[in-house]
Amino acid sequence: MRILHSPMCSFGFVSSLRLLVCLAVLLPCHNVISDEGMYLFNELPTQQLKSRHDFVPSQQWADSLRLSSVRFNSGGSGSFISSDGLVLTNHHVASDTLHKLSTPERNLIEDGFLAKTIGDELQAPDLELNQLVSIDNVTDRINAAVTSKDDPEKAATQRRAIVAEIEQESTEKTGLRSDVVTLYGGAQSHLYRYKKYTDVRLVWAPETAAAFFGGDADNFEYPRFCMDATIMRVYENGKPAKLKNFLRWSDKPVSDGQLVFVSGNPGRTQRIYTVDALKYLRDHRMPYVLNYLRRKEVLLQQFGLGGEEDARRARDGLFGIQNGRKAYTGMLAGLQSPQTIAAKQEQQDKVLASLNAQDATSLRAAFAEIADVQQARAKLLKQSVTFRSRYFDLALSILLLAKEDEKPNQDRLSEFTDAGRDSLLQDLLSTAPIYRDLERVKLADELARFVEARGGDDPLVVQTLAGKGPRERAAELIDGSELDDVDRRKKFVESNAKTLLDSNDPVIQLAAGLEDEYRRIRNRNESLDERQRQAYATITQLTNQAMSGESYPDATFTLRLAFGLVKPYQQDGQTIPIATNFAGAFEHETRHAGQKDFKLPQSWHDAKEKLNDSTQLNFVCTADIIGGNSGSPVVNRQGELVGLIFDGNIQSLTSDYLYSDRQGRAVSVSGVGILEALRNVYDATELADSIGH
Amino acid sequence: MRILHSPMCSFGFVSSLRLLVCLAVLLPCHNVISDEGMYLFNELPTQQLKSRHDFVPSQQWADSLRLSSVRFNSGGSGSFISSDGLVLTNHHVASDTLHKLSTPERNLIEDGFLAKTIGDELQAPDLELNQLVSIDNVTDRINAAVTSKDDPEKAATQRRAIVAEIEQESTEKTGLRSDVVTLYGGAQSHLYRYKKYTDVRLVWAPETAAAFFGGDADNFEYPRFCMDATIMRVYENGKPAKLKNFLRWSDKPVSDGQLVFVSGNPGRTQRIYTVDALKYLRDHRMPYVLNYLRRKEVLLQQFGLGGEEDARRARDGLFGIQNGRKAYTGMLAGLQSPQTIAAKQEQQDKVLASLNAQDATSLRAAFAEIADVQQARAKLLKQSVTFRSRYFDLALSILLLAKEDEKPNQDRLSEFTDAGRDSLLQDLLSTAPIYRDLERVKLADELARFVEARGGDDPLVVQTLAGKGPRERAAELIDGSELDDVDRRKKFVESNAKTLLDSNDPVIQLAAGLEDEYRRIRNRNESLDERQRQAYATITQLTNQAMSGESYPDATFTLRLAFGLVKPYQQDGQTIPIATNFAGAFEHETRHAGQKDFKLPQSWHDAKEKLNDSTQLNFVCTADIIGGNSGSPVVNRQGELVGLIFDGNIQSLTSDYLYSDRQGRAVSVSGVGILEALRNVYDATELADSIGH
Repeated sequence: MRILHSPMCSFGFVSSLRLLVCLAVLLPCHNVISDEGMYLFNELPTQQLKSRHDFVPSQQWADSLRLSSVRFNSGGSGSFISSDGLVLTNHHVASDTLHKLSTPERNLIEDGFLAKTIGDELQAPDLELNQLVSIDNVTDRINAAVTSKDDPEKAATQRRAIVAEIEQESTEKTGLRSDVVTLYGGAQSHLYRYKKYTDVRLVWAPETAAAFFGGDADNFEYPRFCMDATIMRVYENGKPAKLKNFLRWSDKPVSDGQLVFVSGNPGRTQRIYTVDALKYLRDHRMPYVLNYLRRKEVLLQQFGLGGEEDARRARDGLFGIQNGRKAYTGMLAGLQSPQTIAAKQEQQDKVLASLNAQDATSLRAAFAEIADVQQARAKLLKQSVTFRSRYFDLALSILLLAKEDEKPNQDRLSEFTDAGRDSLLQDLLSTAPIYRDLERVKLADELARFVEARGGDDPLVVQTLAGKGPRERAAELIDGSELDDVDRRKKFVESNAKTLLDSNDPVIQLAAGLEDEYRRIRNRNESLDERQRQAYATITQLTNQAMSGESYPDATFTLRLAFGLVKPYQQDGQTIPIATNFAGAFEHETRHAGQKDFKLPQSWHDAKEKLNDSTQLNFVCTADIIGGNSGSPVVNRQGELVGLIFDGNIQSLTSDYLYSDRQGRAVSVSGVGILEALRNVYDATELADSIGH
Repeated sequence: MRILHSPMCSFGFVSSLRLLVCLAVLLPCHNVISDEGMYLFNELPTQQLKSRHDFVPSQQWADSLRLSSVRFNSGGSGSFISSDGLVLTNHHVASDTLHKLSTPERNLIEDGFLAKTIGDELQAPDLELNQLVSIDNVTDRINAAVTSKDDPEKAATQRRAIVAEIEQESTEKTGLRSDVVTLYGGAQSHLYRYKKYTDVRLVWAPETAAAFFGGDADNFEYPRFCMDATIMRVYENGKPAKLKNFLRWSDKPVSDGQLVFVSGNPGRTQRIYTVDALKYLRDHRMPYVLNYLRRKEVLLQQFGLGGEEDARRARDGLFGIQNGRKAYTGMLAGLQSPQTIAAKQEQQDKVLASLNAQDATSLRAAFAEIADVQQARAKLLKQSVTFRSRYFDLALSILLLAKEDEKPNQDRLSEFTDAGRDSLLQDLLSTAPIYRDLERVKLADELARFVEARGGDDPLVVQTLAGKGPRERAAELIDGSELDDVDRRKKFVESNAKTLLDSNDPVIQLAAGLEDEYRRIRNRNESLDERQRQAYATITQLTNQAMSGESYPDATFTLRLAFGLVKPYQQDGQTIPIATNFAGAFEHETRHAGQKDFKLPQSWHDAKEKLNDSTQLNFVCTADIIGGNSGSPVVNRQGELVGLIFDGNIQSLTSDYLYSDRQGRAVSVSGVGILEALRNVYDATELADSIGH
C-alpha cells in the first residue's frame, strides 16, 4: 500500500507535510508515449486527452472533480461522496485515526466499525481534511522578492519571508488555508487555497482482515482481494456538512480498455532528478532510510511480542514501517539496476546534444551544482538531532513555536507562520492516546541511533545521554515528562519561551539542548534546497527548450489529475486480468490456508450466501500514481466514481523516478465492490443508499 | 540463546571458525572479586578455587572433565555422556543439523526425533566434533620465527608460515587435528591437539516448541522453561564409539549456593579491549553488524511469508539471526552506557599510574597503536567482497583451495594448509540440502548490500552486476551454477585452478572476479591483526606487571573451565529463584495463552499425568560463559553432570567485555530435568538408562 507519511518524507523534521513540500524537487516531465503524468488542475493535458483518448474535459467536469476531492493532512487522499458530508478513503489512510480511537476494550483496527446512527459516529482526534478551492500563480511576485541569488542562505530567507507574506495576506483576506507550492523545480510558485474540515468522524470501517487481506505478503502484489476502504463524514458547526460538490457513483464495474481518471495528492516523485541526484538516492539516502525502517520494524515486532495489548499498540506504526520498507526495497532495487541510471544518462545527453554551446555549458553547470548539493546532503544525513518520538516531536515543536513567535511572521520557520497556526495546533493538542511504555522503547532506540550516528564521544551525544545509557535515559525522560497530558500540553503551548525553559519537563529540556544544532542543520538544508531550486530552475528551462509537449511538475502532495486505461498485463508469461471478484477472495483464502493474514473475517463467511460473489472487488489501471494517492477516487468519463486507489503493484515501485505502463499498474477497490460489501456483508444498507446522493 | 556462529564472528570470511581464532583478541584478565574467568585447562585457577570455594581439583578430575568435553565445529559445545558414544548438546546447537536432515516430509525441527534403535540414528551431513587431547606451549618457537616485527605484513607472513609448519608437523606425527591458538594477545601461543569425530548421528531431539519454549520473546530472559537439549552419538568405523571418558550424571537437582563448573568453548570475549577498541565496537562495528542482522531478519521473515515450506527453509537461518540481533542489541546498549567506557578508562589509568615513566610511555604508545588499528578497521568495514551465500562461499573456497594448493604449505592462507584439509573437505562436500529459491533471495540481497556499501559506480560493483540489477543478476548466477550438486562439486574440488577458471560455472567466475580484492582486504586485515597482536602483547606484559593473581586469556573458541555458584538474584525489586520446574512450564503456557511460541508440544500435555512436575527444569549460576558455551556440561565437585548450559540472561549480555555476577547469570537445563523428560515425556527409557554408563 502506498501511504504518504513514510519516514523518508519526514525524516528528521517536525512536521512531515510541510517539510515534504519544501523538499520535493520539482521538475517538468514531458509526456511522450504513455499515460504518464500527474497534471496540475490549472494545466490539464487537454491535447493528450483529445489525441490519445478522444476526451475533452469540460471546465465544469474538472471543477466538480477538484472540489469533490479532499486531501487528508495525515497523508493521503479521499473524496466527498454524498451531499451530507460522507468521505471515502482507504482503510490504511484511516488506520492512524482508527488506531487513535481504539482502546484495549475497543479494537477498531481488528473489529472494524459501523455507526448505527449519526450520533454513534466517532470524532477523529486530530484529522484535517483540505478541499482545494483555488490556484493562483504567484511566481513573479516571489521571483521579484528573491534578489540575493548568489547567496543561498540569504535567498532562502528572502523566499521564506515572501512566502509567509503571501500566505498571511491570503489567509486574512479569504479565511482559507493558504499554501505557496513550489513547482517545476522553483521555476513556478502557485498559491493553493483550501477549505479546511477539522471535525471529521468515523462512519464505517471494515476489519483489517478484509481491508489488508493477504497482509505484508500480498502488499504491492496483484491480483488482490482487499476491501481497503473506510467512510468518514465531515462536520461543520457540530452537524454533517452540506456539500454542493460530491461524486456520483457508477453502478457498473470497470471494463477492459476503459478510460479512467485519478484525482488525488501524489506525495513526491523524483522523475527529473539528475543522474547525480539518483545516485545520491541509490548510494546514500535510500540505504540509510532502509536501515532505519528495518530497525524500527524489528523494534516494533519485539515490542509486540509482549502480549496482545502490546501488539495492538505497536500495530499502526509497524504497518506503516513494513509498508515503507517493502516500497523502498523495490525502489532501491530499481535504482541499483544499471539500466535505470543509463536511461537517465541517455536522456540528459540527448538534451545536452540538442542545445547550443552556451546553453549546454549552463546545463552542465546546473548538473554539477546538483551533484555538489548531493555530496553536501550525504554528509548531513547522519547529523540529524531530531528523534522520532511523539514526546520529542511535541517538545521541539512547542519550544520552537514559543521562540518563533517572538519574531515577525515573515522571519519564522515555515511551519510557525500565522497562516498555518490552526493546523499546527490541531496536531499539538491532539487527544490521541500516547503510550508511555511504547514511547520509552522508541525514544531509547532513537537515543541509541543518535549515539551510533554521531559516535559516543560527540559532545552533543554526551550532553544528551547525561551519563546514562540510552534505555535508562529514555525511561528517565519519559517518566518525568507531562507532555502526554493534553491540558498540561495546552499550558506549555500557551507559554512563552522563558517559562518553557524554566519548566522542569525533561523532554522540553532535552529539546532545548538540541535546538541550536537543529537550527544549524535545518539552515544548512534550506540553503541546499535553495541552491537546488536554482539549479533545477535552469535545468527545467533548458530541458523545456529541448523537448516539447504538455508537461507536469514532480509530485508535491497537492491535487493532480492522472489518467489511464483499465488494462491487463503480462507477468511470468501469464496475462494478469484487469479485475478480481469476491469469489476470488474466498479462493485466495483457501489457497493460503493457515498462513498469517490470509483469513477473511467472520462477517464475510457469514455473508457468503447473500453475497453476489461475482461482483468486482479490485481492478488495475495504468494511471500514474504514487504514495499520497492512497484513497484517491477513480472516475469515468462522466466523472462518476468507479474505484478507490489503494496500491500500486510491485512493478510500479520504481515510478518514484521512472513511470512505465508495461507492467506497472495502480490498484483500486471497485466502487461496486464497496457497495456490495456495505449492503451484503456489513448490513449498512442505509449508508450504501446515501452514497452518491 | 548463545550460539557461536553469529555473523559477527565470520563476517566476510570463508570459514567462521578459523578466522574467529585469528581475530579474537586475547588478553589476560585479572580476576579480582568474583567468579569471573574462563581458565585454560593447563592454567587452572587453583588458588582461587581453594581460597574462595575450598576446592582442590585433582589432575584426574580435570583430565576426565577435559576429555569428556567436546567442541562442535559448527559452533558450540557438548559432552560425552556414555561409554557407547552418546553426546549431549543443546537443541539450538544441533538445530543446524536438524535443519539439514529435514525435508518437506520430515520436519525434525518442528516434530523432534527419537531413534527407536541404533539403526534408526540419522547421520549428520557435515558435523565435526573435537575432543581436546593435549596442549603444548609453542610460544618460544613462534617468537623465534617472527623476526620482522617492524614490518607487520612480513611478520604476519612469518607467523603464518611457522604456524603452518608446527601444525603440519604435529598432524603428521600424531594424526590428530592440530591447531595453534594465539592467547593473551599474542603473548602466548599453544598447540591444541584434538581427536576428531566426523561420523555423528542424531539420537534424540525434542520439538522446537519444547526446546525454544517462549521463542524470541523469552530468549535471554529468566525464569525460563526450555528443554534445550539434544542427544547425538559419535561413531568410529561405522559403529558407536567406545569411550573411556564420559560424564556420570548426578541424580540430584542443584541447590542454592552449590559450586558448579562449566567446561566448554567460549567463542570470543573482548574483556581487555582498550578504551579505543571498545569505542570502535560501539561506534562502528556493532552498529554495522546490527544493521546487517536486522536486514537479514527482515529478509528471511519475508521469505517465510511465502508459505509453510518457505518458512521451514528460512527458519534455521532466521533463528540464528534473531538470536544474534537480540544479543548484539544488549551488548551495544551496554557499550553505549557512558559508565562502561568510564570504568575501562579508570582501569587503564590505574595501570598507567602504577608504572614507571618509561613503561607508562610504552603503554601509552601501545594504546595509541590500538587506536590507530581501529581507525583502519573502520575504513575496511564496508569494503568486504564476500557474500553470505552458500554458493558464493563454496565457489570462493574451492577457487582459493586450488590456488593455494599451488604454493608450499607454509605460504598458504591458514584454512588451506595440510593440517586442516580434512575439516575443510568435510564442509565443502557436505550433503546438506541447498535451496535454490532461498539462495537466490540471499544472493540478491548480498549483491544489493555490496552496491550500497561501495556505491553503484565502484568498478568492482559494475563488474559484478554485469549490467543487471541485483535480483536479476542473482537469479542468473544461481540458475547457471552447478555448485549445489555434490558430485559436481567434488569434481570442482579436485580440479586445478586453470580447469576451474575455464569452467562455465557463473558463481565460480564471480568469485574469480573478486579474488584479487578479497586477497587485498584479507592481507590488510592480517597486517592489522599483527599490529594489534604486538600492541596487545605489550599491554599484556605491562598490565601483568601492575596487577597480580591468576588470570585467563580472552575466549578463543577453545576449551575453558569456568566456575560459579547456583545463586538467585534481584531484579526489579524481586528475588529471582535459582530454578524452575515442569509445573512452571505449564503455568507459563497458561499465562501466555494465544501468544506465538508459548504453546508446549502435544507430547508434554499427553505426559502431564505421568510427569513428576516438581522436577527441576532450568537453573542459573554465576559461571562466566559466552557464545560458544552453548551445550557445555555443568558439573558438580564430583565431576558429575548436573546441567547443560543453553543461555545467559539479559543482564549477562555485556559479558563480552564486562563480567558481572550482580545480576548476570548463565542458564542451564537441569540434568534431572532431561532424564525426567526422556523417561516420562519422550518414552525414551532405554536411552535414559544408558546415560552416564
